Amino acid sequence: MSGPKKMSGVLSPVVTPFNEDLSVDAERLVRQCRWLLSQDCGLAVFGTNSEANSLSVEEKIDLLDALVDAGLDTNRMMPGTGACAIPDTVRLTSHAVKRGCAGVLMLPPFYYKGVSDEGLFRSFSEVIQRVGDSNLRIYLYHIPPVAQVPITLTLIERLLKEYPDTVAGIKDSSGDWNNMEAMLKQFPDFAMFAGAETFLLQTMRGGGAGCISATANINSAAIAELYANWQSPDAEAMQAKLDDLRGAVMQYPMIPALKASVAHYSGDGEWARLRPPLVELTAEQKAGLIADLDKRGFKMPGLAEGQAA
Amino acid sequence: MSGPKKMSGVLSPVVTPFNEDLSVDAERLVRQCRWLLSQDCGLAVFGTNSEANSLSVEEKIDLLDALVDAGLDTNRMMPGTGACAIPDTVRLTSHAVKRGCAGVLMLPPFYYKGVSDEGLFRSFSEVIQRVGDSNLRIYLYHIPPVAQVPITLTLIERLLKEYPDTVAGIKDSSGDWNNMEAMLKQFPDFAMFAGAETFLLQTMRGGGAGCISATANINSAAIAELYANWQSPDAEAMQAKLDDLRGAVMQYPMIPALKASVAHYSGDGEWARLRPPLVELTAEQKAGLIADLDKRGFKMPGLAEGQAA
Repeated sequence: MSGPKKMSGVLSPVVTPFNEDLSVDAERLVRQCRWLLSQDCGLAVFGTNSEANSLSVEEKIDLLDALVDAGLDTNRMMPGTGACAIPDTVRLTSHAVKRGCAGVLMLPPFYYKGVSDEGLFRSFSEVIQRVGDSNLRIYLYHIPPVAQVPITLTLIERLLKEYPDTVAGIKDSSGDWNNMEAMLKQFPDFAMFAGAETFLLQTMRGGGAGCISATANINSAAIAELYANWQSPDAEAMQAKLDDLRGAVMQYPMIPALKASVAHYSGDGEWARLRPPLVELTAEQKAGLIADLDKRGFKMPGLAEGQAA
Repeated sequence: MSGPKKMSGVLSPVVTPFNEDLSVDAERLVRQCRWLLSQDCGLAVFGTNSEANSLSVEEKIDLLDALVDAGLDTNRMMPGTGACAIPDTVRLTSHAVKRGCAGVLMLPPFYYKGVSDEGLFRSFSEVIQRVGDSNLRIYLYHIPPVAQVPITLTLIERLLKEYPDTVAGIKDSSGDWNNMEAMLKQFPDFAMFAGAETFLLQTMRGGGAGCISATANINSAAIAELYANWQSPDAEAMQAKLDDLRGAVMQYPMIPALKASVAHYSGDGEWARLRPPLVELTAEQKAGLIADLDKRGFKMPGLAEGQAA
């Protein structure tokens, strides 16, 4: 089989910077992506933490063009492309494949709740056929706490049977290790990314592909280090340290906390901005978060320099 | 205050017809809308039952143009325009106002769950300011079972204080009469539409504006008749008859059942088609539904003739 190789490693659902008028700041995003790649962290742009569903399809196409035109490595790029409407999903997915992205992360249509596996199968099937490109590699996005539309094992089995070359893997943000373990056992060639580094060591031991995690926006290097050294004797200690850092961040609303951290450690306050319906941390929350991170000796090495570049 | 008058009456979240390739069939929709208006039923196109979130913004703009260009009454038109991304909501809403629609029905951004009233206030506020048109009349769309993002009384109060001319009313699809009653009491000038005819008589007695209901796609004339005659001695009996018909339909998945009914009573099988992730009724479900409707003497007067026109 030709086409893009299976993806693996640690990827960040890259937070999206906004200008004062809430338009997207493509240059800041390029710099942030360059920094993430320097930490050995791949680019799952347009994820939940990227506020991707708060962007129009046009904005995402323009941003993707900016990233690719800046020469960032498309082999490490897995943009989120799943929308509620098939024409939107097809349009963005086609563009991502044409621009050379090694994979796309695809939400199911998430407006209607309680939809059948048959309906979801038809939805993914329709997208695959309309994109009609042998270079398309789909990583399914299972995030029931937010999308409220799960991707079941039965659905995956059916998709893999029908589209074995195209349906390449999954990001599991259920937080349910039993589900991740079941996929690792039932679909051995399927690239399973845990949706949080909390499960990274277990995932690697079970033959998984890595993780795509919110906190990889800030703790990228340390997470990538565990990925690279999961068989070392220090692995358990490294996992514990990652968990501790994640726990500190998770005390606050996640996306505002990530942006506040990037703003603080880059020295660039513009990063703290969000699009409604999300709101920034209060001054008190921000002070608490930074104190919690500082007392752990947390750093984002090279970030300030990268942002100034 | 100039600008569009408050809307009232019975509106249908008009089901959207699709061609075999799943593209939108604008001509069939125009005919259906014309028939609904003939039943004294207004046009809440692009609602949940219209599969609106399965259409791209471009598709909705083109469809709205087709409806307005066909000469349908824009005073009875309340297209759904709320999307997850502010630029999408602004684009469709601006278009609807420019084309003369008397109101728009606006979902909150529905991807992120557990968002704050502050975040939702900013979202609606941003849309209102960007549209920047004194003819904009927003009817908020409260549908927690599907959107999973509620519109609270506190949020409504704040929006009404800030935008008293623009925020005109609400559709409440919570199914919770206590919530509808609380709005009727707390916001007397606010146009409250019940999200189901089940609450039509109570709504009218409480000073509400009417209802916007799935079943108004098929039982339009009877629902409109109760609206027109809610003070008559027969009102309770009319309400009971509406409830019985609705109960029969609700035994089946709602949107497929509505489309199957339109297909059957118009004699035009094309109507049964849905976009994934929704799927059509099984043959057994369809036979059951039609039998249940037929034994109640149900008809859709003039529909077959209107569709042939």
